[in-house]
Amino acid sequence: VVGIIGGGQLARMCAPAASRLGIELRVLAARPDESAAQAIVATTIGDHDDRDAVLAFARGCDVVTFDHEHVPLAILEELVADGGLVRPGPGALAHAQDKLLMRARLAAAGLPVPKWARVESADDVVSVADSLGGFPLVLKTARGGYDGRGVWVLTDASMARDVMAGAPVGAEWLAEAFVPFTRELSAQVARSPHGQVAAYPIVQTEQVEGMCRVVTAPAPDLSDDLANAAQQVAMSVAAELDVTGMLAVELFETEDGILINELAMRPHNSGHWSIDGAITDQFENHLRAVLDWPLGDPRSRAPWAIMVNLVGGQSTGSYNDVVLAYRHVMARDPEVRIHLYGKEVRPGRKLGHVTTYGADRSAARARAEHAADYLMGEINE
Amino acid sequence: VVGIIGGGQLARMCAPAASRLGIELRVLAARPDESAAQAIVATTIGDHDDRDAVLAFARGCDVVTFDHEHVPLAILEELVADGGLVRPGPGALAHAQDKLLMRARLAAAGLPVPKWARVESADDVVSVADSLGGFPLVLKTARGGYDGRGVWVLTDASMARDVMAGAPVGAEWLAEAFVPFTRELSAQVARSPHGQVAAYPIVQTEQVEGMCRVVTAPAPDLSDDLANAAQQVAMSVAAELDVTGMLAVELFETEDGILINELAMRPHNSGHWSIDGAITDQFENHLRAVLDWPLGDPRSRAPWAIMVNLVGGQSTGSYNDVVLAYRHVMARDPEVRIHLYGKEVRPGRKLGHVTTYGADRSAARARAEHAADYLMGEINE
Repeated sequence: VVGIIGGGQLARMCAPAASRLGIELRVLAARPDESAAQAIVATTIGDHDDRDAVLAFARGCDVVTFDHEHVPLAILEELVADGGLVRPGPGALAHAQDKLLMRARLAAAGLPVPKWARVESADDVVSVADSLGGFPLVLKTARGGYDGRGVWVLTDASMARDVMAGAPVGAEWLAEAFVPFTRELSAQVARSPHGQVAAYPIVQTEQVEGMCRVVTAPAPDLSDDLANAAQQVAMSVAAELDVTGMLAVELFETEDGILINELAMRPHNSGHWSIDGAITDQFENHLRAVLDWPLGDPRSRAPWAIMVNLVGGQSTGSYNDVVLAYRHVMARDPEVRIHLYGKEVRPGRKLGHVTTYGADRSAARARAEHAADYLMGEINE
Repeated sequence: VVGIIGGGQLARMCAPAASRLGIELRVLAARPDESAAQAIVATTIGDHDDRDAVLAFARGCDVVTFDHEHVPLAILEELVADGGLVRPGPGALAHAQDKLLMRARLAAAGLPVPKWARVESADDVVSVADSLGGFPLVLKTARGGYDGRGVWVLTDASMARDVMAGAPVGAEWLAEAFVPFTRELSAQVARSPHGQVAAYPIVQTEQVEGMCRVVTAPAPDLSDDLANAAQQVAMSVAAELDVTGMLAVELFETEDGILINELAMRPHNSGHWSIDGAITDQFENHLRAVLDWPLGDPRSRAPWAIMVNLVGGQSTGSYNDVVLAYRHVMARDPEVRIHLYGKEVRPGRKLGHVTTYGADRSAARARAEHAADYLMGEINE
């Protein structure tokens, strides 16, 4: 019995692997209409920050894992003290919750991170700016950001003042050098409690307004040396932080090599291509890892796989309209793989993704982008 | 909303595609512990031959389809008369339920079937024996057989007397020529109401004691002519009987060509390889077909795929023992794909299957057979 805290699409996409492997999956979802709650029989409704709800949920599970990294550590520590198996454990998760902690730990381990500094005020930002290479620089809240939220590119000190003035009391901040990256990569590994690691091919991710839009697997024109270095970094992070389950390390590629941007200790958007594109997808390997079962082969099945997120736009119709658009998309491309998450349409919301694969990268990309644009109502032919 | 009558593993294996495509799947299962009931949220408990239960279940569905072909036609005809969408419809399903009807219809359409005759007694068997090529010949009940049940190979007339004497009153029978087949093949097609057809590669099936044990996709050493002929036969059967959804045509290959053995109008054991081995698996194409959506590409993704059924044996431990055996199987072969159906272990019961694929057919087969034998407790190293 594996319990997943959080009822989003990541929990939902664990269901096929669980069903195949005879794993009983239970989900703690906030609402009965959440993505995973629709697809997983054993769903309990409760909040991830409600101590009693989490402890009661965990009691029926052999191991507890996560759809997101927002469960308060104190609850998880209590769970562990009671003898519960929590994977990844609170000691690892702390680094996915708190960017200050993460930067300090990775820097201390000699892993490649951008220059950074803890800041508490706009004055602090000004005083560290020179050591971070000057403006523009990046201001982040230590906690709670995702999909570009909680991250600002500051062009001057007054902008720091505005951002920090608008934040809740008690927010913690870090300032980072603005990295002149040539592109963004993601390195995913599955790691099991007894230390087995399976490293997925390094992929290229393209963000639009802070949100992942296109993933190309493997990253085009990436040298073997850099690909190996990126896999090594992810394996080192996983070992250093004792991560169990899937770990995604979002990376900047620069003229001088790679730098670690963010961590996620769960299946990750940059690995959705693996459902149709890899021998063992990230959801199955996450379950295998948290159960301490031998990991599945993470290699690609096709020369190229392209994943494009379905993000609600101004032109996106209702969920039913999206499904109606299938007729065109499926008729045009019998090979395209469509994945919806069962979420109501809202602009800027991740509603699903499409994957294509094949020997011709640009053709696969054109097919995936067409399908995504058509399903989201951006184009109509 | 697609409703599936029957809660077996075929309904269960429709769940991933339904979830991916945003299809709401409902299942009418006989018991809450059935294979599909464990994996599909919207499960109703009721019998497939209980008119009121079936009609009430169907009322909430846009289209009704099947996990098996045992729903009484009268119920389905009432459903259709009420304006319900039943796919495949009762007019098609009749031929999957009744082998006499099927043989008569296919023979009339000029499709290749073994010589056959309706028989009502052992005397009838004797009198038609010569026209069927003499003993041994095959005796079948018109209804209710599967996995080798309801089929006898008669070596003489006295055996016919014994078999028929032991049958319930009112049983209908047919006698068929014993076909000296060189092997068995299966041809699967998906067909939609507006007539689109997707033909899967022809596969080779190997039976042990009447039950499918190994499927090889595509069938080795099959000439293009014969493969095309087999696909044509399946497409003709689908069109002739107006089948919607997946159709499996089990075939005998003989020195003189192919002959139709049995039909199944639903996803079929001979197509389980397609989950890991084809661009679009049979479960997704079944759903797309019954919804009259454009069909997905049925082609193979690998040169060879091998599916071996997990059939409970005398040495098979409990369900938990099977799962414990994963450690060995997964560690030995990180590429093997394991599928369990959540069914309690019983000797002779299909509990799941494993699939391997690759460029080397004999290596893939050895891997799949090892995994299956180990999981079933037949070997322990």
